[in-house]
Amino acid sequence: MYIVCFDLEGVFTPEIWIAVSKSTGIDELKLTTRDIPDYDVLMKNRIEILKKNKISIKDIQEIILNMELLPGAKVFLDNIRIMAQIVIVTDSFIEFVMPFMEKLDFPTCFCHNLEIGKEGIIIDYKIRIKEMKKKTILAFKMLNYEIIAAGDSYNDVPMLLEAKHGIFFRPPKNVMEEFPEFPVVSEYSELKNLISNYLGLSD
Amino acid sequence: MYIVCFDLEGVFTPEIWIAVSKSTGIDELKLTTRDIPDYDVLMKNRIEILKKNKISIKDIQEIILNMELLPGAKVFLDNIRIMAQIVIVTDSFIEFVMPFMEKLDFPTCFCHNLEIGKEGIIIDYKIRIKEMKKKTILAFKMLNYEIIAAGDSYNDVPMLLEAKHGIFFRPPKNVMEEFPEFPVVSEYSELKNLISNYLGLSD
Repeated sequence: MYIVCFDLEGVFTPEIWIAVSKSTGIDELKLTTRDIPDYDVLMKNRIEILKKNKISIKDIQEIILNMELLPGAKVFLDNIRIMAQIVIVTDSFIEFVMPFMEKLDFPTCFCHNLEIGKEGIIIDYKIRIKEMKKKTILAFKMLNYEIIAAGDSYNDVPMLLEAKHGIFFRPPKNVMEEFPEFPVVSEYSELKNLISNYLGLSD
Repeated sequence: MYIVCFDLEGVFTPEIWIAVSKSTGIDELKLTTRDIPDYDVLMKNRIEILKKNKISIKDIQEIILNMELLPGAKVFLDNIRIMAQIVIVTDSFIEFVMPFMEKLDFPTCFCHNLEIGKEGIIIDYKIRIKEMKKKTILAFKMLNYEIIAAGDSYNDVPMLLEAKHGIFFRPPKNVMEEFPEFPVVSEYSELKNLISNYLGLSD
């Protein structure tokens, strides 16, 4: 039996920090691990900026509530859920992703969480477990599941490598070129066909 | 962070084999592990009866499609899904449970599967992994989740024992008496309150 694991941002939703940057007009929030390679430095920097600008978790949730899923994402996920069990595996935080989970009819989501202080200000972040994406796949494999995993970026690669079938969905060019072993798809219809094939459900 | 694990039959749905027995008029299909303690003997017996009576997987799925969730089950589950991640963990088979998953808006479901032969006749069953319920909780704990688990019967006890918080929902008297360490609830409102308490979400 299969579990299909999906990354969230870039696969079903736009990038949250980009949207927060746009909405607040704070350009510095656009920085990613490509600009600041150390994730801890990047996150602490983001939290400092939010604090300095008195942007609370509620403000960010409001921005996220107004974000749309990527066009076609909901229908695509609905199609996959009737074929196999699915779990969303994201390095984002539960306090950020729940508005999206609601729009997706509450699929199970594995992620991290934030520490919220007085007046709803984000004071820290808590990685639930290091190498969470990879370890999630390992745990499912221990339960005798076979895994199909789809994601778009560097942080998905350990998950894709550990899965029986790893798929890149709309990856940046450099990531795609660095890991030529994974099939690359850019449309939900292609992703669905690929998953159907792996599940042995194609015509 | 928490994952809430639920048994399926007895918690969200009636017992499937009882319904199949009623619908087909075959009394022998009512037998459970209380009558035939060896699960393998019981299942092989069930499969033999279905075969003899030419009852196919499609016939059973038709019966299940016409079964209702327990009253209040869907609203209860919807309430829990906004509070925590949930996974249904059942010793039933994916070919049986999918119609129920559809009625429940496709929560993630961990279960076993059947082997279907010619003309849709069930020829065997495949346990995905031994001690599946317990091992599922162990896997989630390795991913640094805390677990709340609710079930109604003997086969749930190893899962309830491994969870941080185990709960009996409408258990038979003998099971309840044998394991007095677990709180017992019989209404969804009580189950919701207990889970809210454990999640630290109560007023």
